[in-house]
Amino acid sequence: MNLILKNLLKKSDALLISSRPNIIYLTTYPNFSETERECFLLLTRSLPAGKAGKQYLITDKRYSLALEEIAKDFEIIDTGALNFITKDAKNFFKKEKIKTIGFEDYDLTVSEYSKLEKIVKTNPIDLRNFRAIKQKKEIENIRKACKIGDDAFDYIIQQLKLGITEREVVDKLETFINSKGADVSFKPIIAFGKNSSIPHHMTERDRLRTNQIVLLDFGVKINNYCSDMSRTVFFGSASAEFKRIYKTVLEAQTKAIEYINGQLSMVNGQLFAKDIDKIARQYIIKQGYPNIIHSVGHGVGIEVHEPPHLSPTSKDIIKPGMVFSVEPGIYIPGFGGVRIEDLVFISNNKVELISHSNREIIEL
Amino acid sequence: MNLILKNLLKKSDALLISSRPNIIYLTTYPNFSETERECFLLLTRSLPAGKAGKQYLITDKRYSLALEEIAKDFEIIDTGALNFITKDAKNFFKKEKIKTIGFEDYDLTVSEYSKLEKIVKTNPIDLRNFRAIKQKKEIENIRKACKIGDDAFDYIIQQLKLGITEREVVDKLETFINSKGADVSFKPIIAFGKNSSIPHHMTERDRLRTNQIVLLDFGVKINNYCSDMSRTVFFGSASAEFKRIYKTVLEAQTKAIEYINGQLSMVNGQLFAKDIDKIARQYIIKQGYPNIIHSVGHGVGIEVHEPPHLSPTSKDIIKPGMVFSVEPGIYIPGFGGVRIEDLVFISNNKVELISHSNREIIEL
Repeated sequence: MNLILKNLLKKSDALLISSRPNIIYLTTYPNFSETERECFLLLTRSLPAGKAGKQYLITDKRYSLALEEIAKDFEIIDTGALNFITKDAKNFFKKEKIKTIGFEDYDLTVSEYSKLEKIVKTNPIDLRNFRAIKQKKEIENIRKACKIGDDAFDYIIQQLKLGITEREVVDKLETFINSKGADVSFKPIIAFGKNSSIPHHMTERDRLRTNQIVLLDFGVKINNYCSDMSRTVFFGSASAEFKRIYKTVLEAQTKAIEYINGQLSMVNGQLFAKDIDKIARQYIIKQGYPNIIHSVGHGVGIEVHEPPHLSPTSKDIIKPGMVFSVEPGIYIPGFGGVRIEDLVFISNNKVELISHSNREIIEL
Repeated sequence: MNLILKNLLKKSDALLISSRPNIIYLTTYPNFSETERECFLLLTRSLPAGKAGKQYLITDKRYSLALEEIAKDFEIIDTGALNFITKDAKNFFKKEKIKTIGFEDYDLTVSEYSKLEKIVKTNPIDLRNFRAIKQKKEIENIRKACKIGDDAFDYIIQQLKLGITEREVVDKLETFINSKGADVSFKPIIAFGKNSSIPHHMTERDRLRTNQIVLLDFGVKINNYCSDMSRTVFFGSASAEFKRIYKTVLEAQTKAIEYINGQLSMVNGQLFAKDIDKIARQYIIKQGYPNIIHSVGHGVGIEVHEPPHLSPTSKDIIKPGMVFSVEPGIYIPGFGGVRIEDLVFISNNKVELISHSNREIIEL
């Protein structure tokens, strides 16, 4: 069993894992709903010491037959996740001598917790950083996702024709990514013209016109692992103003990556996520542009947004094995926006860009 | 303001709405993440009486510019949803004289709640049935989704060729649905052969062979509203056993729908969701098949699964304006499964099928 979980089991007789990404991580099974509670994992302590702890996967019969083949390391309880904490858990905990349980307080709802706390002593556990340092196999999958993302970018910029709608670009991107045996890691954000000034623009039926910005933010998911990238291209002949903004964003990203490299090359240097954010943010402000209205980066893995968080208030420390985005942006309401986003992988003493799409200005 | 909310505001000075479907319902804006906390709505009581209460939409700057145009009835607070309850809420509540707040205890996490309860008196509120009775406009959108679903079914059964993979069928379905200006309401479930015995089979790379069952379970989302349908067809010449199972499932569905009609035609009759479930379930068991390993139906609307729940333990009462699925199934491990799922709409005194795809045995 994972060392972090083992240590948590010193303080609790069992751990109730409820968050979907952690369930995927521990079982490799990605098919539970993102919006409904369909599964819990229950991991128990080895008692007496030396005897192996037990691992239960609590779900319902819509899934249990499939899971017997996939999650062999788990005993399946198939009477339903919510039914378990509402009804069966009391006797189960008694039988298994579980008196204290660790739970994910950032995931369990108040209503679920109110049932649990009546029958067992509870300890909040924090597994949010659990997956921040990636194993080799995880990095390989993220690389695969990035490669398909790069190919998708090459493909999609050839599809940008006068009159195409944002929505049609999304559909073409999805079809391309699906054809590679992968999924999108989130609904692609495609923003034409001044729509690009809204970082999370909702893709609509606006048609592409000449001399418009095209902001593309999309990701790929394969073997449960995500990529995430953004590029901003110009459909037509880019104005001096667009070029100045673009170069400022690119320079902000370059400076942030150079800063990471500099810190990593120092003996015993510590690298704070908030400092990477600061480098990019301050550069953009110094050039006279508005402060970035989102964080400069985020970890990527089973979730498309996960720790570490590169924001001004982040307490995260960057360590070897982490994968995260570096994505400064400038957004001018009424004019448009530019965002350039790449994923980087931190190895022992250097930073490696794992998305490779052209970062220079592209005029189509 | 909605009457249910008005009544809840008699008991609390304000309501904190956190669940994404309710946020979509109240703002019509569907673009917030399904997995991350990106928005709260805060509705305040009209004080003094007569003065209108205020409606706040609390999100961050990635969304706020877009929201100013869309959600005109809300004042936007754009300093971030989590930042609000962690930091800003205390002073805000003081300023607005909010001393008690209603919150969705089935949605708010324990960690979020722990911040809230320190600064305000909390009352759990239950808005899970809030959207169960649909308005005319909502029904129209669900009808639109069903119509595209029916067209998608006609299209996809023509694409079932020897050697196609489950995954390719999913991709073709998605592409077709996207081409109609709609989205899938969930990742389609396509199960060939014995995979169909797993109700929530995870679509893989299995190839279609002659004389195999093909179970298709998919839905469409348009204008924020979902459809959900299942059909089971036979690729080849159906065996007597398959036909017997199919007819049993179809008869179970027919009997459940007839039961609804019978109850609705009675003066002052009450229609319990669990009784509809029972009719279909008991019929299947009586024919010698295994008990259905899922509930017989569920409401459909902004969510693809929402109240009412048609299950043996449901306390829901069926009322005019509700839309739900009726979807009995028989699953024989090692052999395969059959599920037939349609949506029905309850009007004042009758039930109306709003999906129209062929329900007879189809051999391809």
